[in-house]
Amino acid sequence: MQELQEKIKKDGVVLGGNILKVDSFLNHQIDIDLLNKIGQEFKNRFTNKHITKILTVEASGIAVAAISAQHFNNIPILFAKKNKTKNIDQNSVYSSQAQSFTHGTTYEIIVSKAFLSKDDTVLLIDDFLANGCALEALVDICHKAQANIAGAGIVIEKGFQEGGKRIRSKNIQLESLAIIEKMDANGIIFR
Amino acid sequence: MQELQEKIKKDGVVLGGNILKVDSFLNHQIDIDLLNKIGQEFKNRFTNKHITKILTVEASGIAVAAISAQHFNNIPILFAKKNKTKNIDQNSVYSSQAQSFTHGTTYEIIVSKAFLSKDDTVLLIDDFLANGCALEALVDICHKAQANIAGAGIVIEKGFQEGGKRIRSKNIQLESLAIIEKMDANGIIFR
Repeated sequence: MQELQEKIKKDGVVLGGNILKVDSFLNHQIDIDLLNKIGQEFKNRFTNKHITKILTVEASGIAVAAISAQHFNNIPILFAKKNKTKNIDQNSVYSSQAQSFTHGTTYEIIVSKAFLSKDDTVLLIDDFLANGCALEALVDICHKAQANIAGAGIVIEKGFQEGGKRIRSKNIQLESLAIIEKMDANGIIFR
Repeated sequence: MQELQEKIKKDGVVLGGNILKVDSFLNHQIDIDLLNKIGQEFKNRFTNKHITKILTVEASGIAVAAISAQHFNNIPILFAKKNKTKNIDQNSVYSSQAQSFTHGTTYEIIVSKAFLSKDDTVLLIDDFLANGCALEALVDICHKAQANIAGAGIVIEKGFQEGGKRIRSKNIQLESLAIIEKMDANGIIFR
């Protein structure tokens, strides 16, 4: 997606440790115009799937999912929560483990069983795909709910990390709107 | 807002400890149609303010803020992050302390100084107002940034808790689309 790549080149900041800061438009301050173009592009790429629900994970996937849902007939979105409490009734939720690339920690994500079932065809959405753990946890939750996975829509994939390969190897249609092949102080090269 | 009150009566679940579960349409699974009506109503109530940015706090305020921004000429949204890392450069962020009613914990929220300034007129948005601590922390951050506060738009206010009174006493225009006067196993009464 040309406009997104240009935006990343213009406003993204490459930091050490393979970190790309896009907090001026994607995951802290958020450009709503751009999100609508992203949502339209997801619709173009998943146009013939009969998607009933968009599933993402808090926090930075939520805005992308909410705006994108409008391009899919305002289907509901559902965001997996990062479990902070010990006293969740485990019988009422689907849960999975994920690892944070940025924070170097492992966390549990949960989705209420009431909102995901075998009658759903789910589009997974997230802002970033790096090592793929968050997305794999969403896939795991869909499997536990016996929901169909229509595919995964990612805004920025770090193509030099493993996540993309791991998701594609599961035969999931993965659509990343910008795939970074290489980035360093000299700039960003897209695949 | 009549439609919102009806939705809360129909799909909200009152639990012990003054907890209202609205996770089927507001803060886990999210009804995008309803959010657009909420966003339009916020626009009606803040129509003459020249708002430049919407500020909310992760996670459940983000979808409300993102959809609402579309009714304010697609102004950017900014979500305060709950600080989980010790190694944030404190010189680059505005921070404030807030207490979670639901989880009984205190946490720090942060906003990058790059995205909030005296040139901004800010609409604060959140899904719930209970004791008011999250909203007061957002107010505090705006004061630190010398940003103007146009007002606060809340989806559901628990009118029997202190937050509304505390925010209104600061001369901030507070617009809560549904104010719960009383709730228990017998039902919900709105103000």
